[in-house]
Amino acid sequence: MQENKKPLLLITNDDGYQAKGLKCLIEVVKHYGNVVVVAPEIGRSGMAHAITMKKPLTYTLLEESPDYKLYSCSGTPADCVKVARFQILKQEPDFIFSGINHGSNSSINVVYSGTMGAALEGAIAGIPSVGFSLLSHNPDADFSEAQIFIAQIIEKVLQFGLTPKTCLNVNFPKVSEIAYKGIKICHQTKGFWRENYLETSDPWDNKSYWLTGSYTNQEPENAETDEWALANNYVSIVPVHVDLTHYESINQLKKQGYEA
Amino acid sequence: MQENKKPLLLITNDDGYQAKGLKCLIEVVKHYGNVVVVAPEIGRSGMAHAITMKKPLTYTLLEESPDYKLYSCSGTPADCVKVARFQILKQEPDFIFSGINHGSNSSINVVYSGTMGAALEGAIAGIPSVGFSLLSHNPDADFSEAQIFIAQIIEKVLQFGLTPKTCLNVNFPKVSEIAYKGIKICHQTKGFWRENYLETSDPWDNKSYWLTGSYTNQEPENAETDEWALANNYVSIVPVHVDLTHYESINQLKKQGYEA
Repeated sequence: MQENKKPLLLITNDDGYQAKGLKCLIEVVKHYGNVVVVAPEIGRSGMAHAITMKKPLTYTLLEESPDYKLYSCSGTPADCVKVARFQILKQEPDFIFSGINHGSNSSINVVYSGTMGAALEGAIAGIPSVGFSLLSHNPDADFSEAQIFIAQIIEKVLQFGLTPKTCLNVNFPKVSEIAYKGIKICHQTKGFWRENYLETSDPWDNKSYWLTGSYTNQEPENAETDEWALANNYVSIVPVHVDLTHYESINQLKKQGYEA
Repeated sequence: MQENKKPLLLITNDDGYQAKGLKCLIEVVKHYGNVVVVAPEIGRSGMAHAITMKKPLTYTLLEESPDYKLYSCSGTPADCVKVARFQILKQEPDFIFSGINHGSNSSINVVYSGTMGAALEGAIAGIPSVGFSLLSHNPDADFSEAQIFIAQIIEKVLQFGLTPKTCLNVNFPKVSEIAYKGIKICHQTKGFWRENYLETSDPWDNKSYWLTGSYTNQEPENAETDEWALANNYVSIVPVHVDLTHYESINQLKKQGYEA
């Protein structure tokens, strides 16, 4: 980006262009540059890093104001980033912000998250990117305190950039009567979901199964994890990256004779 | 798993239960234990780690033979693993094998891959899991040489298990006139796709856009990457894991004052 130009800021989410969380993110981001929003036309929660390969995508300009342009897109959050970069925008965005998601993307949720799929798509492209999520599924959740911290975090990212191929996974505690205590830089909490499918029947008694589950935290109570931070009313930031290699296993597999 | 019992082996894929690659994987895996297959009812390529949250899932027992049971499932590959574990099976699978995918899941493709989404879902659960992919999209691709190596790899995984929270991303070169040279344990090649959307029109002249693109390898030519191994006719194995934390960034972000 040129020194004397406003940065180009791309916004997306996974709850769809009508979500309150998206509007609250735009309210903050618009103060920092030229904003283009490309968001899914419907909610695409749980879409992870999915991309649309077997059908073509569409997009529509819905709103144009002095502050931003807003497009809806028929694809996933990662598709929105790709369509923005290679189809809608005339130049590469300088930063990508995704969210504010209605619901947690801490711990293992990061791998299922469409919000973070979009941020990771930015990281792959070498664009500093941040996903923001609030620990409430309420469509009318209160994002006001999160917005204050989002402004702080955006200012840092604009100032310092991020390590190439990384992005930030930012989660906000549910708003309570006490203010957030501050920000903690964390690692991703080790944990998993144990599913408990809810059986339903259609009028012809065909069974189908809704995903429900309960989360297990596998870490000792520990100030360094995002779950600990959130439980203690801190905003959590986990730097995440797109190299999934488990380097520690490379020598072990060689010793076990896989290459022999 | 008990010593004197055959292991329970779960198979899935992302090309759907009718894919040749799945059948070729079953042919190998059935020699190593009791096999249950839970595969998408349609092709779900590019689904990454997506899960189905906004509608209920269905599954159907399609085939029951002495060698295996085969179910189709309406969900994504990761859904197939969850539905198998929490709905279909009476006990936890001992191992999960995903594939054989028709197409590459090397380099950055791992993050878009439904095949690997399923294997990573196994890793989250602490179940040793492997995703297999062949570098050919041909629906009638020749998997015969891959099958020989799959048997070897399965024997190793059954013997040694895998580091908890990791799984293997195995890719096979396209079959050529010369035999595969062997196996290389690799790290994920740093790279990205530059998209080039193909515009199409419907009968009413509405435009839509098909995802197409070209891959850029950002590594120096290097014997340690999966792209190098595959280009040199080796089978590549990358150990991958589900902790996305970029630990090297934690101190840097603290120094930049994010917590202040």
